Amino acid sequence: MSTVSNIPEKTIERLSEYRRTLLACHKDGITHIFSHVLAGMHGITAVQVRRDLMLIGFSSDTKKGYDVKVLIEFINNILDSEQAVGIAVIGMGHLGQAITKYFNSKGLKLHIVAAFDVDPTKVGCTIEDIPCYHMEQFEEVVGQMEISMVIISSPSRVAPSLVVPIINAGIKGVLNFTSAPLNFPKGIVSQNYDITTILEKVAYFVKENDENNT
Amino acid sequence: MSTVSNIPEKTIERLSEYRRTLLACHKDGITHIFSHVLAGMHGITAVQVRRDLMLIGFSSDTKKGYDVKVLIEFINNILDSEQAVGIAVIGMGHLGQAITKYFNSKGLKLHIVAAFDVDPTKVGCTIEDIPCYHMEQFEEVVGQMEISMVIISSPSRVAPSLVVPIINAGIKGVLNFTSAPLNFPKGIVSQNYDITTILEKVAYFVKENDENNT
Repeated sequence: MSTVSNIPEKTIERLSEYRRTLLACHKDGITHIFSHVLAGMHGITAVQVRRDLMLIGFSSDTKKGYDVKVLIEFINNILDSEQAVGIAVIGMGHLGQAITKYFNSKGLKLHIVAAFDVDPTKVGCTIEDIPCYHMEQFEEVVGQMEISMVIISSPSRVAPSLVVPIINAGIKGVLNFTSAPLNFPKGIVSQNYDITTILEKVAYFVKENDENNT
Repeated sequence: MSTVSNIPEKTIERLSEYRRTLLACHKDGITHIFSHVLAGMHGITAVQVRRDLMLIGFSSDTKKGYDVKVLIEFINNILDSEQAVGIAVIGMGHLGQAITKYFNSKGLKLHIVAAFDVDPTKVGCTIEDIPCYHMEQFEEVVGQMEISMVIISSPSRVAPSLVVPIINAGIKGVLNFTSAPLNFPKGIVSQNYDITTILEKVAYFVKENDENNT
């Protein structure tokens, strides 16, 4: 992923993860948390946690640990946009529906607001509480609903044909779940996120572990 | 992810991606491919492709480019196990079903062979062509079916309770799709792969791009 920020990608990922843990702590009535406790919950070192929070300029009362509520607010200010961010899903098959249901149930600032497909049994319907439009209406609907990000969960063979409509509609962020690697011009943040790659990677390191233990 | 291999994680990910592209090329009757063409299809530099292939000891006839079939075989030898690898899905909701369908349709060496759930409407059924067992039978079925990897697609609140059964059953690789970060002892390869984290990351860099352009 090409970025212009000074905060490393991995730190951004961890901030998102810390926030979910902190929100769960807050819900359970926990007001303060030490860096080593937060670290332990994520299987990393306290040094890593402190380094990440230092990078975003957060410092804590070390006697009581981090103030959970204040730290959540601090991470919100880093990660979240001031306006709500509208997301569309392209491809409302099993995977698209699962992602929509999973994601919109979390009550986050990011929200999936529309779906696109070409299947006549889906177009015009409400699926997982969001309207499904024909892909022909993509540019129009993106403009009307102020959608700035898309999730691609179409069949892989269709994915390359989506690049031009996505550029033309002025989309700024793309999360691509298909096996087709997609390239976008600068100015569009994109991330290929193929399940197969990650599963093959885990399988490879399992094999390596086995070979090193025999 | 903790690893013992000399090949970096990112190279392994790219090898998996190259292989899918090469398989598609092979299917289309393409016999040779230049590093810069393969690189262009993945939005990276030819230097990166050459570096990755050098790391695994592959060199090519530069006049005609890489031999597609030979390179596929070479990557197979790096990534694949000799035996078939059995995978189980824990949590057969929308996401679990979508992953199973998506993954098993690809004809890979890795195959999802069993599902586990606690929902009485699912246990005992065949879903997406695989049998669904009760989580109580986990250890027994894993042994019988020689399952070595699991995909966790349960509700996040359930995920921490799965760690002990996974360890006890002798599972060697874990791909965790929930929002609950899970820690496993050394010897178990695990990867947290939360959609929310990646989507929040893309949203952050979209916001950064915007701020740098205004």
